[in-house]
Amino acid sequence: MEREHVSRQYDAELNDIREHLLEMGGKVEMMISDAMKSLVDRDTQLADRTIAFDHEINHLEVAIDEKCLQVLATRQPAGRDLRFLTLALKIVTDLERIGDQCAAIAKRARELNLDPPLKPYIDLPRMATWTCVMVKEALDAFVRGDADLAVKVCEDDQFVDDLNEQIQRELLTFMMEDPGTISRAIKINYISKCLERIADHATNVAEMVIFMVKGKDIRHTIA
Amino acid sequence: MEREHVSRQYDAELNDIREHLLEMGGKVEMMISDAMKSLVDRDTQLADRTIAFDHEINHLEVAIDEKCLQVLATRQPAGRDLRFLTLALKIVTDLERIGDQCAAIAKRARELNLDPPLKPYIDLPRMATWTCVMVKEALDAFVRGDADLAVKVCEDDQFVDDLNEQIQRELLTFMMEDPGTISRAIKINYISKCLERIADHATNVAEMVIFMVKGKDIRHTIA
Repeated sequence: MEREHVSRQYDAELNDIREHLLEMGGKVEMMISDAMKSLVDRDTQLADRTIAFDHEINHLEVAIDEKCLQVLATRQPAGRDLRFLTLALKIVTDLERIGDQCAAIAKRARELNLDPPLKPYIDLPRMATWTCVMVKEALDAFVRGDADLAVKVCEDDQFVDDLNEQIQRELLTFMMEDPGTISRAIKINYISKCLERIADHATNVAEMVIFMVKGKDIRHTIA
Repeated sequence: MEREHVSRQYDAELNDIREHLLEMGGKVEMMISDAMKSLVDRDTQLADRTIAFDHEINHLEVAIDEKCLQVLATRQPAGRDLRFLTLALKIVTDLERIGDQCAAIAKRARELNLDPPLKPYIDLPRMATWTCVMVKEALDAFVRGDADLAVKVCEDDQFVDDLNEQIQRELLTFMMEDPGTISRAIKINYISKCLERIADHATNVAEMVIFMVKGKDIRHTIA
């Protein structure tokens, strides 16, 4: 009976980490969408708020790290749970760095909002929506241990890379035709690369999930 | 006596992880220097080798991850050791991604080697040397638990950021004056950003070390 109680509590702790990771993921997705909105709508106040919000993401990283450490220290997890916890530790770092990228996008948006618009943004918002979905699906794949979904995320990365290439080529044409656009084009290019980097983080998470689900199980490798 | 034997073995396992991390760090430092050399010396074969070498770094990440998981599963580490192991898990990911950046630099070097040189490289090699030292010191700070050295790494990041800004401004001038240089300038700019990103990874490691040394100790927070 006592053991059952402990086991229920342990499950609750793992669930708590799962939920906090999803919560952090949701906030990071919101940051991606806000950063893009601050650019497209030329909303500098939203850019400021997005930059400030990065602190909350940093705090969440530390908090989830601590939760994982506590469970590792007190529950002696093995096998699947151990892999889950150590992966959670890695994934929060990816989420935190996605937050950094969003803040970087918002900073460039703030600068771009001071100049006349170069062109209407079409591909960048598409890219942002796509990366947002990738982040969400990578996390879903993690909490559900769904390797198929993780594989899909890895495949989707190609589309974001292609969009990034396309945006870079288009900006190159702008710059060639009118050197007066170079400064703005470089900032937009930077934003495109930030989004590509966010997609890379999602892909990294997805790759780790695939390894977690299909990789060697620690229980079979320890002596 | 038996317990002492187990404890010595445990220490040996932790040392083994420490050594493998340093070995991986050394290989990553070599990759940074080789990637830069392949650009400066226009050595496409070295660029190819650097790109191929990234696989070895990926394997090392998986191997060190497994070592950490084994110790976590079998030794029930607590306190300082637990923090060391969970940080090691995060740090190998940073090292692996530095390897990715080096491969990305080598790929651009390979492309740039097909065109006539834009200008002699002066700041980029300086930046590469600097980031190499940052990676080395961040790892040294980790294995020694040296928060002061970690603080120095974080401070050095500003210098790399400044160099990156300077390179970007210089390339902008090139592009403005001669649109024929834009395509090459963008590739060089990309390499500069890769180096800046490597320095960011080193800084991330250093920040985690500071947190490990000065942060809350898990032993005082668990019930």
